[in-house]
Amino acid sequence: MASDRRAIGIGLMGLGVVGSGVARILQQKADVYERQIGRPLAIRHVLVRDPSKPRDFGIDPALVTTNARDLLADPEVELIIEVMGAEEPAYGYLRDALQAGKFVVTANKEVMAKHGAELLATAREHNVDLLYEASVGGGIPIIAPLKRDLLANDIVGVTAIINGTTNFILSSMSKGGGSFGEALAAAQALGFAEPDPTNDVEGIDAAYKLCILATLAFHMDVHPEDVFREGITKLGERDFVYARELGYAIKLLAMGRKEGDQVQLRVHPALIPADQLLASVDGALNAVEIEGDLMSRVLFQGPGAGSLPTTSSVVADALDAAVSISNKVYWPHSSRREAGLRVMPMDDVRSRYYLRIGVADKPGVLARIAGVLSDRGISIASVIQKEVDGQATAEIVIMTHEAREADLQRALQEIRGVVGVSGVDQVLRVKS
Amino acid sequence: MASDRRAIGIGLMGLGVVGSGVARILQQKADVYERQIGRPLAIRHVLVRDPSKPRDFGIDPALVTTNARDLLADPEVELIIEVMGAEEPAYGYLRDALQAGKFVVTANKEVMAKHGAELLATAREHNVDLLYEASVGGGIPIIAPLKRDLLANDIVGVTAIINGTTNFILSSMSKGGGSFGEALAAAQALGFAEPDPTNDVEGIDAAYKLCILATLAFHMDVHPEDVFREGITKLGERDFVYARELGYAIKLLAMGRKEGDQVQLRVHPALIPADQLLASVDGALNAVEIEGDLMSRVLFQGPGAGSLPTTSSVVADALDAAVSISNKVYWPHSSRREAGLRVMPMDDVRSRYYLRIGVADKPGVLARIAGVLSDRGISIASVIQKEVDGQATAEIVIMTHEAREADLQRALQEIRGVVGVSGVDQVLRVKS
Repeated sequence: MASDRRAIGIGLMGLGVVGSGVARILQQKADVYERQIGRPLAIRHVLVRDPSKPRDFGIDPALVTTNARDLLADPEVELIIEVMGAEEPAYGYLRDALQAGKFVVTANKEVMAKHGAELLATAREHNVDLLYEASVGGGIPIIAPLKRDLLANDIVGVTAIINGTTNFILSSMSKGGGSFGEALAAAQALGFAEPDPTNDVEGIDAAYKLCILATLAFHMDVHPEDVFREGITKLGERDFVYARELGYAIKLLAMGRKEGDQVQLRVHPALIPADQLLASVDGALNAVEIEGDLMSRVLFQGPGAGSLPTTSSVVADALDAAVSISNKVYWPHSSRREAGLRVMPMDDVRSRYYLRIGVADKPGVLARIAGVLSDRGISIASVIQKEVDGQATAEIVIMTHEAREADLQRALQEIRGVVGVSGVDQVLRVKS
Repeated sequence: MASDRRAIGIGLMGLGVVGSGVARILQQKADVYERQIGRPLAIRHVLVRDPSKPRDFGIDPALVTTNARDLLADPEVELIIEVMGAEEPAYGYLRDALQAGKFVVTANKEVMAKHGAELLATAREHNVDLLYEASVGGGIPIIAPLKRDLLANDIVGVTAIINGTTNFILSSMSKGGGSFGEALAAAQALGFAEPDPTNDVEGIDAAYKLCILATLAFHMDVHPEDVFREGITKLGERDFVYARELGYAIKLLAMGRKEGDQVQLRVHPALIPADQLLASVDGALNAVEIEGDLMSRVLFQGPGAGSLPTTSSVVADALDAAVSISNKVYWPHSSRREAGLRVMPMDDVRSRYYLRIGVADKPGVLARIAGVLSDRGISIASVIQKEVDGQATAEIVIMTHEAREADLQRALQEIRGVVGVSGVDQVLRVKS
């Protein structure tokens, strides 16, 4: 085995922002990586959609193909690196690669969120590994720590800012960057948001990532439809002003929390107390806080996206896979599942709430609102009532103590019918 | 091999704060860990110094021994967990265990800092692993991320708050907790500082941990004597007042930084700009920031000590070793060393500085001090001059721009001789 210094053949799927980074770094650092693992890594094929697209660095045109079979059927390809994104055709390619006994490294959160359990089982059957560090948190190590370093713990909580686009937009809004539409347009102009931002601003991307984290953290299979999801499009500039006044930041949070045999899974904007570290995670940064019975709380923070940070995680996985391939070592990851865990219905989730209610500026309205909340067993922690400049209405901002979501929603329905209330303009959950 | 459900025999060395936690958790979570790795873990011997000491949980007295040979010579012991601390006799035991082909998990920073390279080589020779996640940062995963997850990077910087005792003392001083002596006494009363606090307050413990981190980060062998070290005992209450006024926190930092083929290695108190995350790492928390060419900066934060957090890391390593033992998989970690790297002499380190100088309150002193600094090419960023209540002297606090350590030290010598200067009362480096 000592004489086996042959190159480990890589099939690279995708040559976009991340794929270009991976290809370039594997070339630039070929020597150091070879010293690291004892054998060179060699890209044998690169799968692209449009071979005529100009590339700003030297990838041998002879390697470029539009036919996935060139990668999947080549016995010299021992490792597939998939950085195409989107569910199809990536999902089919990864399944085929694993069935062909190839190691796989992927950055694909959608495929891992929807098909991770099946693909990991396929990998085990074929004695290969499927690695996906780059699918969550860009350059932040978070998958490997959950898979290994925190394994002694009973993990009870995952709280994460894991979508850079929305965090960039919310950071901008909190600094006076205008309405959601204006902040989105600015983010798009700077390349921090896609032309179609739906996946990001509606929390879909964050929900995929939460599925991946929660599956590892709680040892249960979590699917996108298990996650309660609310986007950031309805946040108003005034919410940021009130939040600051009350001592909070507003972030899109992805949260998983185990309570007994139930697991909360939710992605929504939330008020975070300003003195918590997550409140100061600004711009395109990501952060993941994991809470366990032994280590209490550990926070991981870093760049959540971008070509080079994502390349950092993809190549780390590739080096790990290369050591396995080179040494013919198959590391059997656990697929332990905790029986009896189930997703908590959103109705049963308890939280504190921030309510912004438009009212006719008449005496008695606040008392009537307070009465409705009280009837539902929801107590008020603080109230701000302000005139809205140049309008006939005023605005009441209420922070509640902890309440059950279903009770709160029922109370809101009644509040909408209270005389003097023009509308419930905002409802946000508050991180405790 | 499928039928091999025998228990994996563990020899536990040490039954202090951490050892008790490890023993208790291995008992409490025996079922879940067995499901995790497919075989039970069983403590076969526990090495203690004083067998008559009462233990507050049920460890079978028949397992307790004062003779290390009982563990090392037992062929049924496949894994040694060492949580005794101190260099000897732990170092000899670990060497013997590895030479006997046993896997080893240790939390011993002193042994790893002084003998890590040799022990890791011994482990490789005998196809076993030596794991030491708990030696740095308590419950924070940092060794494994450096060994694996960040490996694609050229790591250029490690900046860490890795001593909980000093961080607790400094946090307390910054909140008006009195002089160093008073804050130390309070920390001792609360169990956050040892009766003999030398290792902590002189930065010795932090230097050990920096050796371990820097060896992994920079792929060079770093020893305790390579680390420039300055403790926190000379910090005054007024330094915290001035630091806050200037917009900084004061922390004991452990820093490694690669510049070309030289590596800075230093442990000393430093001013940190208040808007940096490290500035808000308070109390007994630890945090490690790693900077690399691909992932830019990633921060790991969590509890740096304590029985359960350290147990979290020790048991994670034990589970990892158990998978290796159970599956007869030896994972070959890289021992890549970068040739040509050397430790930068402290004289050549460049930093900004905070100087607190006692002066007779006479006109012209500041001008003369500024002249000395200017002659040495050191420019002043800001100055505070204040009367010291009820004394004949005043105090000048100077923040410099970046300067070479040797130039600064020479300038300080001259400043001490300037007419009107009563003394250079404090010199602190400033993190940029």
